[in-house]
Amino acid sequence: MTKIKCTISYDGTNFSGFQIQPRQRTVQGELEKALRRIHKGEHIRIHPSGRTDTGVHAKGQTIHFETTYQLPLNNWKMAINTLLPGDLYVHEVEEADDAFHARYDVVEKEYHYYVWNEREKDVFKQHYYYQFPYQLNMDAMQRACALLEGEHDFTTFSSAKASIKGSKIRNMYEVSCSREGSTIEFVFRGSGFLYNMVRIIVGALLDIGQGKRNPDDIEELLMRKDRRLLGDTVPAQGLYLWNVTYK
Amino acid sequence: MTKIKCTISYDGTNFSGFQIQPRQRTVQGELEKALRRIHKGEHIRIHPSGRTDTGVHAKGQTIHFETTYQLPLNNWKMAINTLLPGDLYVHEVEEADDAFHARYDVVEKEYHYYVWNEREKDVFKQHYYYQFPYQLNMDAMQRACALLEGEHDFTTFSSAKASIKGSKIRNMYEVSCSREGSTIEFVFRGSGFLYNMVRIIVGALLDIGQGKRNPDDIEELLMRKDRRLLGDTVPAQGLYLWNVTYK
Repeated sequence: MTKIKCTISYDGTNFSGFQIQPRQRTVQGELEKALRRIHKGEHIRIHPSGRTDTGVHAKGQTIHFETTYQLPLNNWKMAINTLLPGDLYVHEVEEADDAFHARYDVVEKEYHYYVWNEREKDVFKQHYYYQFPYQLNMDAMQRACALLEGEHDFTTFSSAKASIKGSKIRNMYEVSCSREGSTIEFVFRGSGFLYNMVRIIVGALLDIGQGKRNPDDIEELLMRKDRRLLGDTVPAQGLYLWNVTYK
Repeated sequence: MTKIKCTISYDGTNFSGFQIQPRQRTVQGELEKALRRIHKGEHIRIHPSGRTDTGVHAKGQTIHFETTYQLPLNNWKMAINTLLPGDLYVHEVEEADDAFHARYDVVEKEYHYYVWNEREKDVFKQHYYYQFPYQLNMDAMQRACALLEGEHDFTTFSSAKASIKGSKIRNMYEVSCSREGSTIEFVFRGSGFLYNMVRIIVGALLDIGQGKRNPDDIEELLMRKDRRLLGDTVPAQGLYLWNVTYK
């Protein structure tokens, strides 16, 4: 048995998320279909670093699977890519340790979120940015970002739908935002992320950028541990799973 | 009767081209559907500066239509955009002269073509760039571009499917290419363009960039007036109707 680790990217626009579902086009579904063809009908289960929701993109998602099929690593890459649709691609194939697990061995994940801060619509950005027409105070947002860095209980910033069990404490190594022209880039690097956490944080940061909230509110929001204190989750299409780091 | 001129953009990915066709999703079809709703069921015919093929994008296409409906110009913009799908947008609405015609009054058109010059696939570029993996000599391509500028008979560089009647002489005010990172941008500004002309020229320029042809071949190619001398038309998804200029 060989354990294969792959770095993949996908345009989330036409996927009903990562996880396999009946009668839906999903990333897992397309990958397992390609692997089943390579394995002459045998079902090969893949394991991602984590799921992504409908419309969320990935520049550097990681998956693993096990196989008895013998192929040089470069041939694996070509064999899988030949069978994948245009919106899903394998960038790197490596042989992993027997003990490796794409989900449990993650030490750091990086997400980016992109806002197109213009009043005029850009048809080419609709699936790749969140268009936000209002003026934003970058200084205020940056001050709020700094308060989110470090180890905190992120209950206030996670979906109420998330499971109750498990710690909500996560360590954020980087929370930042910067503007280039009309594009605002948010970068999040952390030990792990709760369900919808990035999209809820970006929503709160946009409130702060508009002056609806004070940057210093972050400290109290973290302390109160109550999702209802915050507004809307921003849309999926601005979110990218950028990179996953392992030991 | 008021004549309305609109500047529009569209992401060509999910349109079967511009021109209306039964049971196909087209730019004209979606625009006329929106106008019919505004005009309470009355059919309003729109006229573009020219058609675009399936998969071709527009940053600045121009259309006109006639109406007896009275609306302030800003309300026109909002009224139409409210009824349009996400991949089609009206940027500007103006009142035009009675004599104006979006097709016959064009004095200059500008097209851009984008090549992604990388071996590795980028899933986010598949509908917006032509991915071309081979090394290109920019100097050679730029010399060939210079030879295409000015007034020429472009028979060699137009689709054999184009109608036989009509002059094939066009005036190119600018033909240029430049590289920024892995992106190669081709810019064409001219008095008008023959069917498939930009895509055939880019194909020839890529041959020259690979050393399959000499930049100086352009002169003989123009002189020979024979489409069969050239290779493939490059794919639609790299092509953008960038701007249309009127008197």
